[in-house]
Amino acid sequence: MTERPEETICAPATAIGGAIAVIRVSGPESLKICEKIFYPADPNNRPIDQKGYTIMFGEIRSGEEAIDEVLISIYRAPHSYTGENSVEISCHASRYIIKKILELLILNGAVSAKPGEFTQRAFFNGKMDLSQAEAVADIIASKTRSSHKIALDQMRGSFSAEITTLRSELLNFASLIELELDFGEEDVEFADRKKLKAIIIKVRELSDKLAGSFMLGNVIKNGIPVAIVGKPNSGKSTLLNALLMEERAIVSEIPGTTRDSIEDTMVIDDMEYRFIDTAGLRETSDVIESIGIKKTHEKIRQASVILLIDEVSDTAESINGRIESIRKMIMESGKRLIILINKTDTSPLENHAELERKIIIKKDETLLFISAKERTGLEELRLRLTDISLKEKLSSDDVIITNIRHYEALIHVSESLGRVISGLEDHIPEDLIAIDIRHAIYYLGEITGEITSDEILGNIFRNFCIGK
Amino acid sequence: MTERPEETICAPATAIGGAIAVIRVSGPESLKICEKIFYPADPNNRPIDQKGYTIMFGEIRSGEEAIDEVLISIYRAPHSYTGENSVEISCHASRYIIKKILELLILNGAVSAKPGEFTQRAFFNGKMDLSQAEAVADIIASKTRSSHKIALDQMRGSFSAEITTLRSELLNFASLIELELDFGEEDVEFADRKKLKAIIIKVRELSDKLAGSFMLGNVIKNGIPVAIVGKPNSGKSTLLNALLMEERAIVSEIPGTTRDSIEDTMVIDDMEYRFIDTAGLRETSDVIESIGIKKTHEKIRQASVILLIDEVSDTAESINGRIESIRKMIMESGKRLIILINKTDTSPLENHAELERKIIIKKDETLLFISAKERTGLEELRLRLTDISLKEKLSSDDVIITNIRHYEALIHVSESLGRVISGLEDHIPEDLIAIDIRHAIYYLGEITGEITSDEILGNIFRNFCIGK
Repeated sequence: MTERPEETICAPATAIGGAIAVIRVSGPESLKICEKIFYPADPNNRPIDQKGYTIMFGEIRSGEEAIDEVLISIYRAPHSYTGENSVEISCHASRYIIKKILELLILNGAVSAKPGEFTQRAFFNGKMDLSQAEAVADIIASKTRSSHKIALDQMRGSFSAEITTLRSELLNFASLIELELDFGEEDVEFADRKKLKAIIIKVRELSDKLAGSFMLGNVIKNGIPVAIVGKPNSGKSTLLNALLMEERAIVSEIPGTTRDSIEDTMVIDDMEYRFIDTAGLRETSDVIESIGIKKTHEKIRQASVILLIDEVSDTAESINGRIESIRKMIMESGKRLIILINKTDTSPLENHAELERKIIIKKDETLLFISAKERTGLEELRLRLTDISLKEKLSSDDVIITNIRHYEALIHVSESLGRVISGLEDHIPEDLIAIDIRHAIYYLGEITGEITSDEILGNIFRNFCIGK
Repeated sequence: MTERPEETICAPATAIGGAIAVIRVSGPESLKICEKIFYPADPNNRPIDQKGYTIMFGEIRSGEEAIDEVLISIYRAPHSYTGENSVEISCHASRYIIKKILELLILNGAVSAKPGEFTQRAFFNGKMDLSQAEAVADIIASKTRSSHKIALDQMRGSFSAEITTLRSELLNFASLIELELDFGEEDVEFADRKKLKAIIIKVRELSDKLAGSFMLGNVIKNGIPVAIVGKPNSGKSTLLNALLMEERAIVSEIPGTTRDSIEDTMVIDDMEYRFIDTAGLRETSDVIESIGIKKTHEKIRQASVILLIDEVSDTAESINGRIESIRKMIMESGKRLIILINKTDTSPLENHAELERKIIIKKDETLLFISAKERTGLEELRLRLTDISLKEKLSSDDVIITNIRHYEALIHVSESLGRVISGLEDHIPEDLIAIDIRHAIYYLGEITGEITSDEILGNIFRNFCIGK
């Protein structure tokens, strides 16, 4: 994605479906273009004469044809999101009006914005670094308090600050090493090797700690993968619906949130759970009986939590058999197993006690008796799910990374610094050590965008929505 | 829906799915409430001190927790949409953020807005009359240039102006009649009966003309109903998809517009067509062969245009038979019949000519040879569809009404004025004539909202979306 700062870009910034829509315009000609299509209610005022951070009321017209009564918000470079002159047109949210206003803007010299192009301009104009720009998309996608907090912290620069600190320590170090190189023939050792090594070890530890937060960050950002397995008609779909019911009610007030017909994520106690292959659940074609089936294996492989559903009418023998089969698939992977004995509404309480005695569960496994239909035992299930979530780890104010691009860069940093450390230990020449330090600095710069390429930028902004 | 002007209301005004979201706040405490949750980037500026039509950048916070970086637009009574103090909060379009900001507003004293409550307040505060308020919802729903033009004209008051003129003429007339009543015993005739009658006839004509525009207005607002009938597998679904293809490409750039999985309306040459029972089309269960079937009858009854699809492989006899059956159902109703002979790609051209000679069509019927699969003949079909649309009637600048409430009120006006005219002719007492004039005035007042009731208002605003 190449830069085109001379162009003025435009795009809708809101979705269809509400009462109002906002169309964004940004670039050198923003005000001039709007001047051509916007007729202020007070004809003595002209957009081009207005200060930034002001609003005007008026009409968008296409020649003689009135298109809409609108409000326009005016921003002047550099005090705008993009850092350029910008105008936001707030109109009625009709498809016809939005289409017509975009057409008019383009007819008068604007071009359609590419996905993420507004944020990309903010990056190019120094309003934010690359990791901050990436956080903008994460903020919009965030569904839980935790994922929102991490994204907002990142947008506000807490991660950038850490990276900048690491980078400046390494830059310092690099200058010292390179100074030695300049005086190489004189065999002067400016830098105390021990001190140098201590610095590098410290930087590497910090970098590793950041990289290490990715597992947690990824779960917070993308949700905890949960596999529901069990015999056909054991109530998998009923369970999912019962869990979803309550969550749905909460968000359904916000327009546009009830559209998804196949819901496969759920937020419980601020943690998002991602149910694997829920489409399959609805067909109830998931036969755990024939253990070894590739599909069940695959689901369990992807999951962090496995919900095994059985019924109170099953025998303890067959239930124990299924538990053992799942255990074999989990092995020592740290995956959590919750065994749910469903349909408690269909048999008397004493049967449950009898069954509970005979079912063999191990440490870290959970056995619960529920009725998905009657919605009993679900509160306990919620508690057990959040129990195993990573909440306690979130309590600290540590920076957590959620982006695989950042993770990979930090792994490269760690590798380069590992070579520096062993280089220092083995007394290898400074020029070779300097190369590895430069590598580490390079990868840190890639995170914040000091070092960048069209390819990296293209990958990042392609996944943004239009209008952001 | 009762008024509650002392409350400050809040609601999201945009749908989920875009880059940004706008939350509206309106009412006496708008600024004070925002002051409690908004922290300006420049702490020396306070929202409460800002002029109207200005924007501030800052942060929404819930205690110590940062929620989002936002822009707030400030409007001061009476210079706002509602006529009250208002604030629009422009935030990132994340569900979490929107929910959190609404929660914060409510915690600090705002209440959730009911559907249409912002516009209702604009009405109560004299920013617009009732027919203008109704037009706001129509503008948002408008998909074509024509429906948009009518709604925008109505919002800008062209219809209100006509009604107000009629009403003031009748008010004048009523005063004259009532003056006579006051001097009744003196047997003075102030008003020249002939002149009075002429005025009433003129007003009634204008009122009837407006009422008469409803048929056209309704079609423009709600689309032309089209029935597609034909044997199973004659290509009904393929035809619909082929027609939709092009239209979809146009709107798919706007976020949120590609969501509808079952599309049953289409805009061709600025006229909206509403396909009846398209779900049935997809099942291809529509058997015209067994003519007389209730379902086909029902579809044709609802339609203004009937597309009968046959295949080139059919015999002229069976095609003519089906045409005749449809004709019987249409009768003298003014419905248009277009006969499409589909799958021309499956047989040589000379067969078509042979078939064309043998198919008997009457005046105002259309016969077209098409291939829905190869998309040939579709341009001709589009032309014929728009051909029979009501375009030419739209060319004038006459006011067109689209609202059944207005139509019904105008019918009442006409009836009352009819009684006035015959009363004048029959020299019935002035006090009786005065009653009918008062009726006519009452119904005109209902349109613009001079006369209103909680029930009428409830019906109108209930159908608005939240946030408008």
